[in-house]
This record gives sequence, C-alpha cells and structure tokens, in this order.
Amino acid sequence: MNRNHNFSAGPGTLPLEVLEEARDEFLVFRDAGASVIEISHRSKQYTDVAENAKALLKSHLGLGDDWHVMFLQGGASMQFYQVPLNFLEAGQTADYVDTGSWSKKAVSEARSLGIVHIAASSAEGGHKRIPAMSEWQQSDKARYLHYTSNNTIFGTQFHFIPESSAPLVCDASSDFLCRPMNTDGHSVIYAGAQKNLGPAGVTVVLIQDDFFRSRKTGLPTMLDYGTHATKLFNTPPVFAVYLVEKVLRWLDDMGGLSVMQKRNEKKAAELYTRIDRTDFYSGNADVDSRSLMNVTFRLPTEDLEATFVSEAAQHGLDGLKGHRSAGGIRASIYNACTPESVSALVAFMDNFEKQRG
Amino acid sequence: MNRNHNFSAGPGTLPLEVLEEARDEFLVFRDAGASVIEISHRSKQYTDVAENAKALLKSHLGLGDDWHVMFLQGGASMQFYQVPLNFLEAGQTADYVDTGSWSKKAVSEARSLGIVHIAASSAEGGHKRIPAMSEWQQSDKARYLHYTSNNTIFGTQFHFIPESSAPLVCDASSDFLCRPMNTDGHSVIYAGAQKNLGPAGVTVVLIQDDFFRSRKTGLPTMLDYGTHATKLFNTPPVFAVYLVEKVLRWLDDMGGLSVMQKRNEKKAAELYTRIDRTDFYSGNADVDSRSLMNVTFRLPTEDLEATFVSEAAQHGLDGLKGHRSAGGIRASIYNACTPESVSALVAFMDNFEKQRG
Repeated sequence: MNRNHNFSAGPGTLPLEVLEEARDEFLVFRDAGASVIEISHRSKQYTDVAENAKALLKSHLGLGDDWHVMFLQGGASMQFYQVPLNFLEAGQTADYVDTGSWSKKAVSEARSLGIVHIAASSAEGGHKRIPAMSEWQQSDKARYLHYTSNNTIFGTQFHFIPESSAPLVCDASSDFLCRPMNTDGHSVIYAGAQKNLGPAGVTVVLIQDDFFRSRKTGLPTMLDYGTHATKLFNTPPVFAVYLVEKVLRWLDDMGGLSVMQKRNEKKAAELYTRIDRTDFYSGNADVDSRSLMNVTFRLPTEDLEATFVSEAAQHGLDGLKGHRSAGGIRASIYNACTPESVSALVAFMDNFEKQRG
Repeated sequence: MNRNHNFSAGPGTLPLEVLEEARDEFLVFRDAGASVIEISHRSKQYTDVAENAKALLKSHLGLGDDWHVMFLQGGASMQFYQVPLNFLEAGQTADYVDTGSWSKKAVSEARSLGIVHIAASSAEGGHKRIPAMSEWQQSDKARYLHYTSNNTIFGTQFHFIPESSAPLVCDASSDFLCRPMNTDGHSVIYAGAQKNLGPAGVTVVLIQDDFFRSRKTGLPTMLDYGTHATKLFNTPPVFAVYLVEKVLRWLDDMGGLSVMQKRNEKKAAELYTRIDRTDFYSGNADVDSRSLMNVTFRLPTEDLEATFVSEAAQHGLDGLKGHRSAGGIRASIYNACTPESVSALVAFMDNFEKQRG
C-alpha cells in the first residue's frame, strides 16, 4: 500500500485506523444490511452514530448540557454569513480580530448585515503574528467578538483565549481539538471538519444555549440555527458525520486532547527546531504566534522552494506547497499526521540543505 | 456479505459496483498516495473527478455549453431558498406547482422573498396525483415556474414537461436521471444526490446561462450562484462528488438513460401489476401519476401494514415503511435498485397475502 506522508492543508490526512475501519464496513454497516451511505438518516444506525459524535464532542471539550451541537453544511464560509445572520441586527456592532484571509472573509459577510469593528489586526507586516491583547481596542457593547483561532495560510495560532466582555465566537476550523480548549466566555465555536476532524462536507457548530436563544427571528429556514439545534430537519451529510464520529473515538483511544496536545507540540517543536537550526530555512510566523498545525517557512529563493516541493513529492512527502497567496512551504501537521511523517520531513530538510544549501 | 434488498427512500441504495470500487481505493486513490478524502480539493486528482462528473452530467442530459453545473451543499432544502434569493425580486411573482410536502417547503421559502402564485395544486384529495395541465392557472408574467418532478412521500411523478411561458425551475431530487429528460424550457434543475445519484451531502444545481446572468446582485457570497459557477470558491464535499462521478460512469456503463428508463419502467410495472392484481394491496397514487421511483400502497389495516414491514425486514427487505406523514408502505426503487430486489419484494407480497389476506 503506497500511502505518502501527507502534509495537505485540507482536506488533510486522517488516522489510518479510521480509514481502515470505514473501508472494512463500507459495503455493510453493522446490522444495517447496507452501506452507511445507503440508509435513512432517521435509522437507528445513523442516529446512534450522530448522537455518539455529539456526546464525544461535548466530552472532549468539557461542554455542558447548555450547548447545542449541530452538523451543518457549507463549510466555515457559510458560517461567516450564518453567524451574523442569526446574531447581528442591523445597526449593532460586532468586533472582529483580523488575522488573515479567513478573518477577512468573515468580516466581509458580517458587514453586509451590521457594523463591524476591527478590534485588532495583524495586516501590518503580513499577518505573521496574533496581535497581543494589549493592542486590542474593543467596542463598548459588541454583540460578539469573532476570532479565527488558527490561520492555515500564514501559519499563526492563538495561544491565549481573548479577554472580552462580549461573547466569543471562534472559527476553530484549522486547529479544532488539537489540544484542550478553554471554552470559558465562548458562545459559538464552529469548525469545518476537513482538517482535524474528518472529511470535507460537514461543519461542526457549537452554540451555548443562552446565546442561541438570543438569535434573530424570521430567518430563512435552513439558515436559522433553530432549525437544526433540536431535531434533524433535512438529510445531513451522513458519511462525513459518520467519519467524524470515528475520528472522535480515535481521539479518545489516543488518550484525549491532553495527550494529543503533547504529541502535537512535540511534532511542531521538531519541525520548528529544524527550521531555526540554520539560516537556510526561515519561519514565516513570529515565534510566539507559531501554529502547531501549519508550519510555514521559506527557503532562500522561490526556485529552491519549487525544487524543494517537487523533490519532497518524489520522496513521498506530499502537500508541502504554500498557499498561493503566501508562497513558500507549508507543512500541515494536523492531529492525524504521525510523528514519523514529521521526522521523515525533517530528514528530507536536512538532506536538501546539505545538497542545495 | 449480508446486504439486504434496500428500498430506503433516501439516502437510498447505490450500485454495488460503485461501492466496491470506492472501497477498494479508499486508502489510496489512484496516484494520490492518500485517500480521496485526504487530498486537496485543488489537486489534479480531485479536479479531474469533478470535471468528469460535470461532463457526464451534461452528456446524460444533453446540455450544451450554456449550462452551469455546480456541486453545492445543504440539499434541496437550501435550494428552496437559494433559487428565489437569486432570482425573485421583492414584488415579483413566481409560479409554483404544489404537489406535496417538498413543493410546500419551496413555496414557504419563496414567500419570504417575493409573491408566490400557486399555479396548480393536488392538495385536494391528498396529493394522489399530478394536476393535469388543463387545470393550471399560470400568472401572466411569472419570473419562473417551479415544480417538483417526483414526490417521494405520496409516490407521484410528472410524466409530462410543464408548458409555460415562464422559465422552468425543476426540483428533480427524487427522480433525477431515472430516464432521459426533456430540458427544453428549463432554466434551473436541482437535485439532492441521495436518491439516484450518490450519497447525502451534495446537491447538483444546473443553471442555464441566460437565466444565470439575470440573477440579483449583492447576495451573500455563499448563496450567490455566481460564487460557484465558474470556480471552486471553497472546499466542496469531495467524497460525495467523487461518488457521484462513479454513479454517472455506472449509468454510462449500464447503457445510459434510455436503458435505465426501460429498466425502471419494468421494475415499476412489476410492482404496480402485483399491487393491482388483487384488492389486498391498493396503490396510493392515481394511475397516470404513479412514480417510477417511489411505489406507495396500502394494506387493509394499519396493523397489517406494520406486520408487513417487520416481516419484510426479517426476509431481508428493508426500508419499506411509508413516510410518517403518509403512512402505508413505500418501496423506493431508484436506479440502483436491482430487478432482483423488486422480484424479491413481489414474491414476499404474494406470500404475505396468501398468509394474511
């Protein structure tokens, strides 16, 4: 079986155990007499899976019964619109922290519905860092404060929870469940699944009940969180939810989020240490804002970067090309990326520098 | 391998060949070195799949280059809103044909945006038929005319194309590609995949370019068809599109839509003939409105219906319980349902009548 080391930024690598289990039961799921993708979304088999996925999500994050868990469609991009549509009245102000492309897209959708105040921005200098709280200027009475916990493109990540009197709304798409999360102060957490959680096609949306109840009325049915919070309104993306449940069980089997944090920190440290060891490689992000998930770095020239990417691919190291808007190299080392893959990349980096440095 | 005869209304049965192929390449897709769900949606491997799916869709339907093909999320339920959001200005009128629950939901979303005129309705008598064109009363200048080509719940299906001076918008979710489609006069055709086309989680949306260009401006990014028509804006539901492509190739291998039509008509005829042969079973829908996809019928009592469903399940015939809003029995015999499954059901019906009739 020829599986490469997969550093794709997303959809990203998934645990081999999860893929094998899904493959083995792909034609007949448990006692369903059919594939999981061929059975009713109201069947006991699917309902059990979805309910277990919700319970595991709450358990991993330590969320109480006052949180709604939804499996929606449309990715984080849809949430950029759906959050303000549900919670931001015309004339009201929401605070947004601008840490790059994804934040900007969220801002743009919110602006069509209400007033957006940029509480902090890392635009100056090219989004190489997460602005320190001391720089933030928050509104007096923001409806909520929105932040993007990890930036896949520039390789930055929040390593603190924002302090705010406003309810926190977190786009956690690219670092969801990479470590325990302090959910204090949060009212909404959403995440596209295709990084740490499963395949593309499902978005996890978590909403605290008090905030949930404060949403606007008269919304289009499918865009009203109320449609999805307590019952299954229409056909969900069954296979994606089914795989998410498996990944959540795998997280449990691995020892949970604290163990995953240590594993992720060790993987990231190995890579950043290698980057910092010589001047041949240079990290993109400021040291205290470096992402555990997306390690971005440059080589001395763009030509060398292109050679690096193509030679790496020949050595079975895939998905290393930086985002088209940022250039350089990006190694996405999500939860399912093994320490062995990271070590293989570091060994390749050593060799590449020896030959080309 | 214990696969049952699967009559689920959706998500429904898929071709065994498709499932086997997907299983066999689930860990490593072609030369990707990873599962198809672990690679970038901008990779050559996924792009080839998506482009081929679009080409096959156009080929099966005989659509020209003036049609846009999109793979969206949110199911037909999202299209109920997205179609009028893009095409119906406040104060404008759209005509809708009410043939049951799904039409009603489409009407409800459109009413939040413009004026809805019900051109025809089968509500009287309980949606047992498709209203004949002679009964229709269309608006003078409707922005479009919306109809639901097949009703999964009541088991009715259009066997004619509506005549209208307005552009036709068709929700073809539950009979899409069950036979060749005369697309003349159509401007929008949409279909959730989970009946004839693939797994839940992707909706095919086809829009003719002249109509496409007439859409409203200033729409939320994700809900504007313009966002998705010419480029990949955000991460699509990769696995669902990948399976749709396989199903479309399977349709080709089977001989295309004309062959599929004959197969479907034969399957349906076998079942309806059995229903009509005695008074023990009685068909729900008027004969000329009977669906090729969802065959609905009643037994003399609700108790007998419950017994029928549970005994059928014991004989490996699954998914026969009618929709909760309609009761009775529903056998969904989508494209991938084999003639053997239909014959097995008919044999069971014979036996059941012998023992209980």
